[in-house]
Amino acid sequence: MKIKVLTIKEDILGANEKKARSNQDRLDEHGILAVNIMSSPGAGKTSLIWQTLDRLKSESRIAVIEGDVASQVDADKLHQHGVPIIQINIPGGCHLDANMVENALDNLPLKELDLIIIENVGNLVCPAEFDLGEHKRVVLSSMPEGDDKPYKYPLMFTEADVVLVNKLDLLPHLDFNASYFCEGITRLNPTVKILQVSCKTGEGLEQWFSWLLAQMKDGKARQAA
Amino acid sequence: MKIKVLTIKEDILGANEKKARSNQDRLDEHGILAVNIMSSPGAGKTSLIWQTLDRLKSESRIAVIEGDVASQVDADKLHQHGVPIIQINIPGGCHLDANMVENALDNLPLKELDLIIIENVGNLVCPAEFDLGEHKRVVLSSMPEGDDKPYKYPLMFTEADVVLVNKLDLLPHLDFNASYFCEGITRLNPTVKILQVSCKTGEGLEQWFSWLLAQMKDGKARQAA
Repeated sequence: MKIKVLTIKEDILGANEKKARSNQDRLDEHGILAVNIMSSPGAGKTSLIWQTLDRLKSESRIAVIEGDVASQVDADKLHQHGVPIIQINIPGGCHLDANMVENALDNLPLKELDLIIIENVGNLVCPAEFDLGEHKRVVLSSMPEGDDKPYKYPLMFTEADVVLVNKLDLLPHLDFNASYFCEGITRLNPTVKILQVSCKTGEGLEQWFSWLLAQMKDGKARQAA
Repeated sequence: MKIKVLTIKEDILGANEKKARSNQDRLDEHGILAVNIMSSPGAGKTSLIWQTLDRLKSESRIAVIEGDVASQVDADKLHQHGVPIIQINIPGGCHLDANMVENALDNLPLKELDLIIIENVGNLVCPAEFDLGEHKRVVLSSMPEGDDKPYKYPLMFTEADVVLVNKLDLLPHLDFNASYFCEGITRLNPTVKILQVSCKTGEGLEQWFSWLLAQMKDGKARQAA
């Protein structure tokens, strides 16, 4: 039984990879940057997106793809920003895949966008295995979750382009060893960018906005090339 | 492709269910209570087990089964209590299944135990789908994760026997609406027991210990019957 499952899984991942490449080609045609935001449940993905829309929507044309097992709680919150939002619900599922993102792209005004932010399902395991066609992978870790997460969920951190360590405002009340946490990540992924932030107070987010704007410029360069 | 996956998934769940029943029969023969503890990463499962061993190991014979994607960080912490611990690592996996628990039972001194605590992989989605043969399902939710979790991850809360809401010590620093949270759970699962606790300070844990001791008595009654 176990071998059977693995075979099917390889088929799924192979088909997903092909679809992901086609999604990325489509994004590049339009010079759109796509970022895939992944984290445990409740680490602050929606708050990060809220802050990002608040700061960047006047200068960049942004859309959001919301992945959830159930509900549209997050989409309802972000709706107030007036940007295009596609809600994907996956009952019984645990991650987004490239096919779901293709369907979302079909429903977005691609000619009028610079950035698509994809909020994946809150899960520190499964989403890391599925390429969506995104250009950059952002992992959000929350300080109250503890400093041992990179040791216990290595794949997610190995494949990240940026790790945001959120809820810095709670740090005085926690036993969180930032050196131990960062060491766990850089051991797996020596070039990753790690930023400590608070999506509640805004502390540290300017570096995130700068990084995102720089990546968007690269997207336009890819389109021109 | 999607239908194929679902078919295989049904086969897996069917086989798992059969194995889970056999695990539970084996536990009942020995009058052992098994609890399956599930949560997001970093919600405090290991701290809960630490506190439980600390309080109950003098009066009850306890073993722990530790499920992790990688590392034995948690098992190393709990090792200091001197109880039997079985570490299960599941690279590329996202939940425990009944087969893994059967293997663990093969390696535990069942004649000398009253309680087996199973710490599942940190994941608020996938573990809920797999019966391990446990008698009770415990979901640990952490206040910093936010009060919307029952709305966004309903299955986990629907199937819980007890929900422990952890990190009560951080409540003064959070925007956590306990009524909204509890309403989300009782809508799905009207008879569930919800306890607010801090595994750091110990606040609220006496109710958890009492509940656990009562369940152990039921286990002995099942054996006698």
